[in-house]
Amino acid sequence: MRPKIYLFGDSITEESFGDGGWGASLSHHFCRTVDVVLRGYSGYNTRWALKVAEKIFPPVESGGAPPLAVTVFFGANDACLPDRYSAFQHVPLHEYKQNLHSIISFFKKRWPEIVILLITPPPIDEDARLRYDSNTLALYIFNKVYRNLVKEITLKFCRHPYIENPSGLPERTNEAAGAYAQACISVAKECGCPVVDLWIKMQECPDWKQAYLSDGLHLTQAGNRIVFEEVVKELKEKGISVENLPVDLPHIANIDPQDPLKAFQDC
Amino acid sequence: MRPKIYLFGDSITEESFGDGGWGASLSHHFCRTVDVVLRGYSGYNTRWALKVAEKIFPPVESGGAPPLAVTVFFGANDACLPDRYSAFQHVPLHEYKQNLHSIISFFKKRWPEIVILLITPPPIDEDARLRYDSNTLALYIFNKVYRNLVKEITLKFCRHPYIENPSGLPERTNEAAGAYAQACISVAKECGCPVVDLWIKMQECPDWKQAYLSDGLHLTQAGNRIVFEEVVKELKEKGISVENLPVDLPHIANIDPQDPLKAFQDC
Repeated sequence: MRPKIYLFGDSITEESFGDGGWGASLSHHFCRTVDVVLRGYSGYNTRWALKVAEKIFPPVESGGAPPLAVTVFFGANDACLPDRYSAFQHVPLHEYKQNLHSIISFFKKRWPEIVILLITPPPIDEDARLRYDSNTLALYIFNKVYRNLVKEITLKFCRHPYIENPSGLPERTNEAAGAYAQACISVAKECGCPVVDLWIKMQECPDWKQAYLSDGLHLTQAGNRIVFEEVVKELKEKGISVENLPVDLPHIANIDPQDPLKAFQDC
Repeated sequence: MRPKIYLFGDSITEESFGDGGWGASLSHHFCRTVDVVLRGYSGYNTRWALKVAEKIFPPVESGGAPPLAVTVFFGANDACLPDRYSAFQHVPLHEYKQNLHSIISFFKKRWPEIVILLITPPPIDEDARLRYDSNTLALYIFNKVYRNLVKEITLKFCRHPYIENPSGLPERTNEAAGAYAQACISVAKECGCPVVDLWIKMQECPDWKQAYLSDGLHLTQAGNRIVFEEVVKELKEKGISVENLPVDLPHIANIDPQDPLKAFQDC
């Protein structure tokens, strides 16, 4: 059986198999060696993630073999401001830290040997969040994120805070995202986990807002590329790399053209 | 547990999580509803596929829950000509048909209820195969297909037929691919399985050689798009669609902003 790497996170994970997405790139990179399993949940924060972790990740007793690694990529929603239109997603900073600790403890208890790779939230382009105003957000929700996934739109949803933003202020700020990123790094250090500091990494590029963010929060293909490269680098430092993993079944380069079936004798 | 769709095939499957790849697009399309599991093996024909099927697909007894569907996408290598430089991959037409029957029987015995979706080989651009000459093929093998997957290059490989093509003739022809495509369709009809006739579908576009094929055999992003759309259409006709599948965990649109945790009471 091929080993797994789980991707656990919010919309930036859920959308990671779109064109040029970091999840798809990981799958491609690890093809024939690892199954990359998508467990992204749009809009989720660490509080909600904790409520569902037990259900998402099967224990070893029920056939859930330990994966090689899991990426934990939350914080963009926790960092929504508590007095703006996405307040219902907000989680206070101290609770965010506690929740990340609890998520790591959950994985360490379930699968003691795996690599738990944390990823900080990306930086925020506040102007782009506002340009991406309530109408655009409503369209985005209906057309892109929700596609056919929602069977029933309740009346409540029509009054959803995503759609009404009377304040005219962005629901997220880069400063708040930075504080959550810093908290994520602290937790990683406290727990001895590797971490990708996406908030800092992206801002190293002067043109980060246009280059890496599609709507001030979600990632362009170039932004996805950074996540992919950083995840590959961190996994490699922990010994998880294509070079170190067995290839699933005989590779064409190891099949003798004079006697191809010999390669399959032990299969 | 989220249900699975397996993608079983040769390099056109193995590479399907590259940029714009049909496998990645399926994963994205079915996110939150299905795990799309990559089981592509570059260079494999139906003869080799049969040797490894038992090992790849775990029986129900050992924790392998039946998937919703499996795509079976072989024939491009079987159709290599028996007197050209890829002859070691060639499988005679009558055996190709028998092998497809055996693969379908294997799946029907293992998982009686699943959808088995056959995909014919794509058309071949012979001129492009020749332009893609032995040096390019050698580079392709070393750099792209093989990347880091091969630990040991044997002396035999240095004399690999991929690298020497003294005949100056292409290893595949469109006519041969068409005969294998037709055989694939016959088997699908005999077994009552849905089938994507990629050989015909692609040639409906006058510019198919440039539009859909990157090296006369493998697919461009537009070619991948066709496979994705046809697979989604065929699965939908068999009742497997995003609309018909349960969403994994509460969707953000169904989380009440006034009381978000209510949605997680039953988790």
